[in-house]
Amino acid sequence: MGPHPAVAAIRLAVRRVLHDILNDHQGFPAQPAGAREDRTAERPPSPLVLVACSGGADSMALASALAFEAPKLGVRAGGVTVDHGLQPGSDLRADEVVLRLRGLGLDPVESVAVTVGRAGGPEAAARDARYAALDAAAERHGAAAVLLGHTRDDQAETVLLGLARGSGIRSLSGMAAVSGAGGRYRRPFLQLDRQTARKACMVQSLPVWDDPHNADPAYTRSRLRHEGLPALEKALGKGVVEALARTAQLSRDDADALDAWARQAEASVRDAAGLLECAKLYALPPAVRRRILRRAAIEAGAPAGALFARHIEEVDRLITGWRGQGAINLPGKVVAQRQGGRLVIRQG
Amino acid sequence: MGPHPAVAAIRLAVRRVLHDILNDHQGFPAQPAGAREDRTAERPPSPLVLVACSGGADSMALASALAFEAPKLGVRAGGVTVDHGLQPGSDLRADEVVLRLRGLGLDPVESVAVTVGRAGGPEAAARDARYAALDAAAERHGAAAVLLGHTRDDQAETVLLGLARGSGIRSLSGMAAVSGAGGRYRRPFLQLDRQTARKACMVQSLPVWDDPHNADPAYTRSRLRHEGLPALEKALGKGVVEALARTAQLSRDDADALDAWARQAEASVRDAAGLLECAKLYALPPAVRRRILRRAAIEAGAPAGALFARHIEEVDRLITGWRGQGAINLPGKVVAQRQGGRLVIRQG
Repeated sequence: MGPHPAVAAIRLAVRRVLHDILNDHQGFPAQPAGAREDRTAERPPSPLVLVACSGGADSMALASALAFEAPKLGVRAGGVTVDHGLQPGSDLRADEVVLRLRGLGLDPVESVAVTVGRAGGPEAAARDARYAALDAAAERHGAAAVLLGHTRDDQAETVLLGLARGSGIRSLSGMAAVSGAGGRYRRPFLQLDRQTARKACMVQSLPVWDDPHNADPAYTRSRLRHEGLPALEKALGKGVVEALARTAQLSRDDADALDAWARQAEASVRDAAGLLECAKLYALPPAVRRRILRRAAIEAGAPAGALFARHIEEVDRLITGWRGQGAINLPGKVVAQRQGGRLVIRQG
Repeated sequence: MGPHPAVAAIRLAVRRVLHDILNDHQGFPAQPAGAREDRTAERPPSPLVLVACSGGADSMALASALAFEAPKLGVRAGGVTVDHGLQPGSDLRADEVVLRLRGLGLDPVESVAVTVGRAGGPEAAARDARYAALDAAAERHGAAAVLLGHTRDDQAETVLLGLARGSGIRSLSGMAAVSGAGGRYRRPFLQLDRQTARKACMVQSLPVWDDPHNADPAYTRSRLRHEGLPALEKALGKGVVEALARTAQLSRDDADALDAWARQAEASVRDAAGLLECAKLYALPPAVRRRILRRAAIEAGAPAGALFARHIEEVDRLITGWRGQGAINLPGKVVAQRQGGRLVIRQG
């Protein structure tokens, strides 16, 4: 008898990603453990893949699947848990996660304590600290990749959070299956639902830890998870999570294509002095023109996070609705103005 | 003392759209009523603009603003109400709406009874019947435009409905400010919230009729309005409706640009016999390639409404993940297969 369907699903998801990782690191072709021994001398050392594990169901399921699949492909499997120090006893819990990961056979396993700042709000600050710690751990251990346990449900929440910003399709594109420097981060469960991960832990008798933050209504994502999404599912039907995840993928591809178009078009709308020519900008589709304007504002020093769609719309009216309006102030003390048929965007 | 801010807002929105209509119909330049009389002989007859009015707050507010603004621009203002015959006494209500519109000074005003079919579900069937009746009324009266009372809240709901389909950014682009044959339909309130329309009716003592369908949880849009959106606002903050409306506009521009790119690229990926060359398709960005595949499937006879993202993904794998797979069946008995480096899509 094969494994429980939930366990089969998480293993398949991890196996696929391990194959991708091995393909991307041509020095590390997939090979059965037996075959490896014969040729040890001629081969590079086995690649190491780390799992980032909070001890919650998603990342515990991921760790268990990695522990099962990695040896079959000649991959070493390790784990990292990050102690955010935000709750009393978080250090003890981190130690417990370390023991559980070792219990699964992962090696190396470590716990990393971080200090969470305040920049960008509590969720963003915790995320920044976490990724910095994971980056450092990956470097320290020379890991080929770090697996993250984000599920399709997390992706759906991320799309809704992006939607609430109203800043266009890039913010609807959620999390990438592959991200970070050199494609370090991989999300094998991005098309798998949270329920499957939970089930896989249950049938494998893996104890899991429920982060109280996930149920704390002070956090936007938690409110979305426990109230917003269920209400949306009630109104629109059960397929909402899948539809949101699909929207993420389609939006990402669309945003990539339009960014590429804008990069290419940008060269053709600059004059010999490198200034943007209004007449040539006017001739472009609005979607491409606004991307060029946004890039120009960021290059001039406007912080990307503070630059909203309404700012770009106002700059765009210098091109499409010109009636002699004055300079437009953008975040980061950047000023946009039209001068003699050219658009000048610079720090004032 | 000027009008109440809500009344000023609805009038400004209608005035802007009337100017657009006059600009688009160059035979009908905007002119004050006084100036018009002197030159009656040399000018074309005043254009007629109709308002589609259900008797609800949004369209009653729209009718009142049209009645106020049209004469100042030398525009004739009329109204149409559609009796969908879905509730007992709907004919009497339609007569009442006719009286109210006449009371505002609109002329011509008429009520049109329609028979609602079943195709596509109750909401789609009612919409189809309504637009057919409005089209016919516009033709009959030689109207330059028909104004529709959709608000920013309606737009937000439409974006969420599109999101639930998970079929990409075109379905996120909501309703257009200008749509229909020759840009017949205009939506002056698309950036105005429903509350403003209600307020404008109240301060003008205009009686309004609340369609019981709008509160009937049997309708998806009604569930969204009364449960889904409020829960989303509670989780994400009050700006959600505005963010959704902005997403609609940005998505529309992006989808237009990518459609234009796909149309242009399509010619370059066909061989002399008009067949799609797989190698050339492969070189395109996924967002552009999938749009070409979708267009080709529709041209071959696949009904657009039945063609989902997953169908196109499967066809795309004939290009990006070729391992000798067989023909792929698409809706409308359309078959896609790869033959000698060419992609053949035709009705089987």
